Amino acid sequence: MRIRVINPNTSASMTETIRRGAVAAAAPDTVIEAVTPTMGPASIEGHYDEALAVPGVLTEVARGVDEGADGFVLACFGDPGMDAARELAGGRPVIGIAQAGMHLAALAGRGFAVVTTLGRTAGRAWDLADAYGFRAKCREVLACEVPVLDLDGVAEDLVADLAKEALTHDGVDSIVLGCAGMAEMAARVSREVGAPVIDGVAAGVGLVEAMVRAGVPAASRGEYARPRPKTYVGLLEGFTVGE
Amino acid sequence: MRIRVINPNTSASMTETIRRGAVAAAAPDTVIEAVTPTMGPASIEGHYDEALAVPGVLTEVARGVDEGADGFVLACFGDPGMDAARELAGGRPVIGIAQAGMHLAALAGRGFAVVTTLGRTAGRAWDLADAYGFRAKCREVLACEVPVLDLDGVAEDLVADLAKEALTHDGVDSIVLGCAGMAEMAARVSREVGAPVIDGVAAGVGLVEAMVRAGVPAASRGEYARPRPKTYVGLLEGFTVGE
Amino acid sequence: MRIRVINPNTSASMTETIRRGAVAAAAPDTVIEAVTPTMGPASIEGHYDEALAVPGVLTEVARGVDEGADGFVLACFGDPGMDAARELAGGRPVIGIAQAGMHLAALAGRGFAVVTTLGRTAGRAWDLADAYGFRAKCREVLACEVPVLDLDGVAEDLVADLAKEALTHDGVDSIVLGCAGMAEMAARVSREVGAPVIDGVAAGVGLVEAMVRAGVPAASRGEYARPRPKTYVGLLEGFTVGE
Amino acid sequence: MRIRVINPNTSASMTETIRRGAVAAAAPDTVIEAVTPTMGPASIEGHYDEALAVPGVLTEVARGVDEGADGFVLACFGDPGMDAARELAGGRPVIGIAQAGMHLAALAGRGFAVVTTLGRTAGRAWDLADAYGFRAKCREVLACEVPVLDLDGVAEDLVADLAKEALTHDGVDSIVLGCAGMAEMAARVSREVGAPVIDGVAAGVGLVEAMVRAGVPAASRGEYARPRPKTYVGLLEGFTVGE
Amino acid sequence: MRIRVINPNTSASMTETIRRGAVAAAAPDTVIEAVTPTMGPASIEGHYDEALAVPGVLTEVARGVDEGADGFVLACFGDPGMDAARELAGGRPVIGIAQAGMHLAALAGRGFAVVTTLGRTAGRAWDLADAYGFRAKCREVLACEVPVLDLDGVAEDLVADLAKEALTHDGVDSIVLGCAGMAEMAARVSREVGAPVIDGVAAGVGLVEAMVRAGVPAASRGEYARPRPKTYVGLLEGFTVGE
Amino acid sequence: MRIRVINPNTSASMTETIRRGAVAAAAPDTVIEAVTPTMGPASIEGHYDEALAVPGVLTEVARGVDEGADGFVLACFGDPGMDAARELAGGRPVIGIAQAGMHLAALAGRGFAVVTTLGRTAGRAWDLADAYGFRAKCREVLACEVPVLDLDGVAEDLVADLAKEALTHDGVDSIVLGCAGMAEMAARVSREVGAPVIDGVAAGVGLVEAMVRAGVPAASRGEYARPRPKTYVGLLEGFTVGE
Repeated sequence: MRIRVINPNTSASMTETIRRGAVAAAAPDTVIEAVTPTMGPASIEGHYDEALAVPGVLTEVARGVDEGADGFVLACFGDPGMDAARELAGGRPVIGIAQAGMHLAALAGRGFAVVTTLGRTAGRAWDLADAYGFRAKCREVLACEVPVLDLDGVAEDLVADLAKEALTHDGVDSIVLGCAGMAEMAARVSREVGAPVIDGVAAGVGLVEAMVRAGVPAASRGEYARPRPKTYVGLLEGFTVGE
Repeated sequence: MRIRVINPNTSASMTETIRRGAVAAAAPDTVIEAVTPTMGPASIEGHYDEALAVPGVLTEVARGVDEGADGFVLACFGDPGMDAARELAGGRPVIGIAQAGMHLAALAGRGFAVVTTLGRTAGRAWDLADAYGFRAKCREVLACEVPVLDLDGVAEDLVADLAKEALTHDGVDSIVLGCAGMAEMAARVSREVGAPVIDGVAAGVGLVEAMVRAGVPAASRGEYARPRPKTYVGLLEGFTVGE
Repeated sequence: MRIRVINPNTSASMTETIRRGAVAAAAPDTVIEAVTPTMGPASIEGHYDEALAVPGVLTEVARGVDEGADGFVLACFGDPGMDAARELAGGRPVIGIAQAGMHLAALAGRGFAVVTTLGRTAGRAWDLADAYGFRAKCREVLACEVPVLDLDGVAEDLVADLAKEALTHDGVDSIVLGCAGMAEMAARVSREVGAPVIDGVAAGVGLVEAMVRAGVPAASRGEYARPRPKTYVGLLEGFTVGE
Repeated sequence: MRIRVINPNTSASMTETIRRGAVAAAAPDTVIEAVTPTMGPASIEGHYDEALAVPGVLTEVARGVDEGADGFVLACFGDPGMDAARELAGGRPVIGIAQAGMHLAALAGRGFAVVTTLGRTAGRAWDLADAYGFRAKCREVLACEVPVLDLDGVAEDLVADLAKEALTHDGVDSIVLGCAGMAEMAARVSREVGAPVIDGVAAGVGLVEAMVRAGVPAASRGEYARPRPKTYVGLLEGFTVGE
Repeated sequence: MRIRVINPNTSASMTETIRRGAVAAAAPDTVIEAVTPTMGPASIEGHYDEALAVPGVLTEVARGVDEGADGFVLACFGDPGMDAARELAGGRPVIGIAQAGMHLAALAGRGFAVVTTLGRTAGRAWDLADAYGFRAKCREVLACEVPVLDLDGVAEDLVADLAKEALTHDGVDSIVLGCAGMAEMAARVSREVGAPVIDGVAAGVGLVEAMVRAGVPAASRGEYARPRPKTYVGLLEGFTVGE
Repeated sequence: MRIRVINPNTSASMTETIRRGAVAAAAPDTVIEAVTPTMGPASIEGHYDEALAVPGVLTEVARGVDEGADGFVLACFGDPGMDAARELAGGRPVIGIAQAGMHLAALAGRGFAVVTTLGRTAGRAWDLADAYGFRAKCREVLACEVPVLDLDGVAEDLVADLAKEALTHDGVDSIVLGCAGMAEMAARVSREVGAPVIDGVAAGVGLVEAMVRAGVPAASRGEYARPRPKTYVGLLEGFTVGE
């Protein structure tokens, strides 16, 4: 099985972090291909950044389909372009890491908290929790206020502190890390706080594997059918899809 | 007051239809500026089209802010890029026509139905109804299955038929038209079905006016603060914003 | 356009405050007619007061229809008698200021708080947030514990303090003032707290204008059809409606 | 125990029907006092009627408190004035028949349908189902389209037909009768359809008894404290309450 | 009327406490039969305990049906086996004390808090609040952290303290006691905190009485029809039911 | 990795069907151990059956923990005893097949339908959809009305017919099979209806694998801590757990 992990942030070092996290979680017979789009913002920290990351993500999904990928993980906690990507993917699973992390958290216990980078992204996290059905299970979205590209050991301590804070609240059984750049923090923070700490990249790899092995394709009819062919103008002309 | 109405579909004739609808609904002292982005798909009929319309929409919002617009209407029923646009708009209202149409429908009665173009867009309409708080008030999303650029008199008859069908169901008090290209259908269909039929473009103009006159800016802090400056690569490099 | 603004509290000085707020928000070609019912409690601070304000409100709606009003704003944050008024109004918009304020807040950002007079009215505010679809967007209802007829500069400071408190909580983008008697506080408090502060009277005027200009009548069939004629007894005999 | 059953409709014959239903359901040591207000509409078939029934209901609640009633049942399916009545009742239970009927239906099975008089009242029934927490349990509101004062044996057949229709739908375990005037239909319709058919008057009597015997007063603080004394003008002057 | 109150905890002294609470709340013509199952855990303090209490509860329900009981109260706040018991009860009401307590709290005011024994049972309380429709009315579940069989006067003080704490929060009008072992605390704690404090056993007795007197059987078709006869193996063989 | 798949129905032939489905979906390095409890009903077709299956399931979970299982799948669509099992499992994932099937369906598209055996089990399916967050995504629960132990080729045709019926409804993207006995139908029915058809057993295996590989244990604190040791009486004495 070949899983393409797309880093919507166009920062190669972050892609490498993500790749290591994905490989560590993959089954022995799964090939992880971590890629960085050729256009888009260096990091995603708001709705604007996310919107402009989407064309690059879609290009990578189209390329992945051509090159034989069996499924896709979108490694940004806003799950940018996920529905659009599904129209391109022809039934191959496309899972965002917010979606993946929240699903595993829902399986791991009753309630979870998200610990993320900047507070300005919390609104998007709540929107996704709503859309995925987890408004009641997601109890808090806490921010360490460290920008995506500055995540380091100091930030990891802040994340652990916020995780502890959330776990002392009633009903929070696990922590979902709110940024792909936190992929390698999960194990250490989990040991430190004594509760499940979930990296969405690892979760996404496992969920794509689960779908493929269970013979469950993603929907590819109606809403998720291939985009209708049409004229594009301007910088985006290259995006025209054929029937 | 100057309201910029942006047609996310890059089809000039559709922009002209939208402009006429907006002008008809505007107060005497409101100037309507209807614009077509220079990049993006000719029409929007799914998540992929919508995602690729967003960069063009954002360019027009940035230009509108520079040129003194007091508020924006996004004239596509998927409200593409609305949250991202708000980060650029510095407190000027940015209202999508799905949001506007659903808000007026919520004020006009207990329940409403959306009558739209292609059935594949219904999922997006439901997502927006959810996000805006109107899941319980939106009772049905019906599709005439006419593509956006083929809307004509025949389609108008189909829309009227679907509207009548919806009005016979319990609790539907009004109809929201699910495409900016239907802007000029509202009056005739309303007469034909004997109930409120709401064009989101007219609704959006009125709601921007209401906010500006009531002295209610949009939020421009936290989630909706100006995007953080950062490096962009590829075709989207031109989108870099300054502090 | 003629908009009748009805003050359900039978206090003329309060009606004058409301009138000034409404006029300030109206379009140049809109005529504001602010009226005080001839029966009912001097102020509304609970369910009992509100229930007994309704007959006076309905009398004013009936009179407004006869005298050519194009729409109505009910200037009490409990939106008293709104559904009953709609049965009388024959498709003319009837909007309460809680409804109006919450709708504009929903357009202005993700979440809002209500700042009101007495804490005992908070339950009604929550009921209305629920009914209008804004349970998730309304995050707090805070009370300054100043009675309606005692609102003054000191109360305005308390309101500003509560507004600041609410804005420091996660996700509150704007403040909705919870009493018509606070109409003139909005501008100053907004400047002081640096965020949108919404007066429902101004919001209501703008929303009635938006509906009328967009050609969107309120529902007037079924649930909102004219009341069935019937016999009344006692003090309420004068209310009998003809077919 | 003395339970005052107030018929918000000012029709004495209907009060007698209600009284018989209440007596049949009461415990041997409970005294039923069924009363008709001295003001208000002959029957309640919409929001306007309901609003104008409230002053008469409140007068009867005040009188009942003075005369030693232990609790109140409001015998109209719109539960008119219930919150206002609670402010007067000083902790004595006040239960509307929609509330009572829906509570017993929620105890009797998974889902229920309401069968009511006129379709124009369905919106109110849904509002109440929402407010009481039973939106998911209330599956349908069906109307026989017989006015309240015309309910007779023919209407009973229509009610039975609608009940049967609802019971064939997935998940409906019981029927709630949507009008106090249907009180005496419950037993026969239940036998005919082979499922629980619930009269709200009987249900309300049982629930007031349950609260009193279990030593559970209604709330009488904060929102439900006695109304604040204030000036009333016009026909409603008599309603002024003292501290 | 004969009501069988089943204590799912197999501790006879607790059954006696429950019996006294039930008798005190019952109407004069109601016979209370409090029983202890012959198998199961001594006390119920988690999902595992609850699951293993169910076979004993079901045995008692079957016995009660044979011996002429008119209805059942399940006196453990997890309402263990309630749906299964209803399949056996042939239309006789079966009400759990969480269900009963929450229903009376919903009738007594706007919001309530549950005060329970161990914090580990709070998740079950929330699940039941959800299932019964009271997620919005249940504001808090607080635990005194005293095990079920250690409840005494000291625990009662802790419960009163938690009740006071909850009542100072916005919107909590009453307290629901979260354990059958607290049955006799209700009156004293209510006096101490000055608000309704609800014992589910008393509430359950009243609700069974209300259903029986109102002629409202529980559902006994479809989902709640008698269990299909089948083969059982192992220790549970004795549970086989006949057609 | 060793996954124990427990068939709560005590029918060995059904366990064999389940085992084959689980093995087919497992990764190459996963060992599947399918077991049949030594007590309980032959098949589960209602709340009563399910309640009596739980003790046998818990025995198998305890045994699995002792014997080194890494996770558990409960192969009955009512997910019987799942919360209780988690208290025993010490952080090892325990996933029911309703939970698993619904989670994969939520990842596969916008909406799904459940196709199950007997209609009387639909209520439980809805309860689980609610509890897992999928009330809005689960659109229909359809029953073929074939008992669990009679599932065969004819039933498979009925299931395919119901699946087709559901897929023609708006918004249903996939089908979740509502019984472990349908495990081997998924592939053929999927081919026949041209959409994802999900077997919960395969889904459950994949989700346990995803959790284990991603290093995400289940919660094992608070609500999910080991049961408190206590005395058991009667047939259930053997269930006493040590500290």
